[in-house]
Amino acid sequence: MSSFANSFGPHAPEETYVEHGHEERLFDTGEVRLNYVVAGEATNPPLLLVPGQTESWWGYAQAIPTLAERFHVHAVDLRGQGRSSRTPGRYTLDLMGNDLVRFVDGVIGRSTYVSGLSSGGVLAAWLSAYAKPGQVLAAHYEDPPLFSSELVPTVGQGIRQAIGPVFELFSRYLGDQWSVGDWDGLVTAMGSELPAPIRFIGAAFASGAEPTQNLKEYDPEWGRAFWTGAVGQACPHDRMLAAVKVPVLFTHHFRAIDEPSGWLLGASSDLQAAKVREIVSATGSPIEYVSLPTMGHSFHGQDPAGFCDTLSSWLDALTT
Amino acid sequence: MSSFANSFGPHAPEETYVEHGHEERLFDTGEVRLNYVVAGEATNPPLLLVPGQTESWWGYAQAIPTLAERFHVHAVDLRGQGRSSRTPGRYTLDLMGNDLVRFVDGVIGRSTYVSGLSSGGVLAAWLSAYAKPGQVLAAHYEDPPLFSSELVPTVGQGIRQAIGPVFELFSRYLGDQWSVGDWDGLVTAMGSELPAPIRFIGAAFASGAEPTQNLKEYDPEWGRAFWTGAVGQACPHDRMLAAVKVPVLFTHHFRAIDEPSGWLLGASSDLQAAKVREIVSATGSPIEYVSLPTMGHSFHGQDPAGFCDTLSSWLDALTT
Repeated sequence: MSSFANSFGPHAPEETYVEHGHEERLFDTGEVRLNYVVAGEATNPPLLLVPGQTESWWGYAQAIPTLAERFHVHAVDLRGQGRSSRTPGRYTLDLMGNDLVRFVDGVIGRSTYVSGLSSGGVLAAWLSAYAKPGQVLAAHYEDPPLFSSELVPTVGQGIRQAIGPVFELFSRYLGDQWSVGDWDGLVTAMGSELPAPIRFIGAAFASGAEPTQNLKEYDPEWGRAFWTGAVGQACPHDRMLAAVKVPVLFTHHFRAIDEPSGWLLGASSDLQAAKVREIVSATGSPIEYVSLPTMGHSFHGQDPAGFCDTLSSWLDALTT
Repeated sequence: MSSFANSFGPHAPEETYVEHGHEERLFDTGEVRLNYVVAGEATNPPLLLVPGQTESWWGYAQAIPTLAERFHVHAVDLRGQGRSSRTPGRYTLDLMGNDLVRFVDGVIGRSTYVSGLSSGGVLAAWLSAYAKPGQVLAAHYEDPPLFSSELVPTVGQGIRQAIGPVFELFSRYLGDQWSVGDWDGLVTAMGSELPAPIRFIGAAFASGAEPTQNLKEYDPEWGRAFWTGAVGQACPHDRMLAAVKVPVLFTHHFRAIDEPSGWLLGASSDLQAAKVREIVSATGSPIEYVSLPTMGHSFHGQDPAGFCDTLSSWLDALTT
């Protein structure tokens, strides 16, 4: 058994990080050092890319070259992920969202488009609702777990009838800031401890003898924050969506309900997606809904060209 | 018995507000409309004044003329107080602090001094730790309930062994957004339901046949957020103080421990104040501690001239 207690994180860069062929830069928000990369001409319209949970900016590595032909691309690491600094006790949507508000101010410096995957898609929603006036032009929610990442959702399955137990295992076996670091225990638990409806996905989250690169760069306290609901304590999704002020693209990927248990497989259910559309539509902001039921969770990872096309087509239609 | 259910708030300005002889302005943060006043020459150094819980900007009305001789004064209403908009479900230190970050950006537009009373003093501490780099020059914590307004403090009495039950009564008898509005019930409860150590202060918070002006302007959900701890869920005070980056003035007013119960009377105990000084000193930022054991909670309200003198003398010493 290998222990990786306290092995990974910004304090141990050589053990933790690898190069990805892009110059990485740091931005000081005042609380957090946010790591990011920039690609594309500054004369292009800006695009902010927000990774999902357990994803660093380089989850977009395959998509960036194509996106950079059209956009001035900024891909960030959120607090507690990638090379950004960790903030024990302080992982909430409101704090992460305000990090991005400061990033738009301090780095992008003008109105921007935003696209975020998964939890990053929830943050794209947050920005579309709560950013400073004029900061965000339009927002793409890429397979966002709206309602389904809440502890107490207003509609459908909450996180404990969905992906939540995976995050709980990250938290338990790796510990806040990798303080436990029991990788073998995590791999075993992913195969044996997950509730039946989601046990089949365990191996995709942890397998092999060594921690995967994306998890080395991940503060497992994120997992605890989602499992306990702390991440969204003051940010109910229904209220957030009712405050949306800009056009929205919602791409909805693979999803199913496990009939025997009623659990959600995928990022959000059709019922939840319908509620998102209902609430956003009522704000008067246009919402384009694209159902991609055979697409995996990361459109930008699985089909970078299709991702770029979908994003570009939507923006073309918006701006013409 | 009079019911004031839903009688007060931004939706009912004529019933709620009175004039105070200063032009009031609104700033749109993107989520909240923050009400504020400005006084003094723009060539003076800026000073941001942050009221306490149940206080609107005009709690500073007596101090503003003197402060305006030296400063470019900005006094704000926090979300859920005064003429600022209410944000149900979203009363946290991190959100209120980021409101002020946006206010400094969008209204003051340069590095500023900040002084806050009570919960506003905790927000002054928040800004001294978590504002954007360069936004805050120095911070005055006016009798702040550091540790003592937490549900689970690292040192000394938490809010439920201090002022907390007063806020719980506000919440219960007035309701979120004044949805209950049972003023008579509140007055009675302040005289009979408060725990013994703090029962003597009840009448100071609610008495008479009509709601007091400051409470008309107060969203009682603030009280619930403090009673439940939701206001500080992701903002432990010890961690915040360890992130302080600018010089601090801490004025510590009346306080005592009720011996039979161990409860705190006043905003923070000597033990808690010593811990504040210890943590801030360890950051390398200078902290000036001024003990004023015979001063009431609001120095700026009780002795405006002395308040201005103390603030000015500290800044003079800092800048020479």
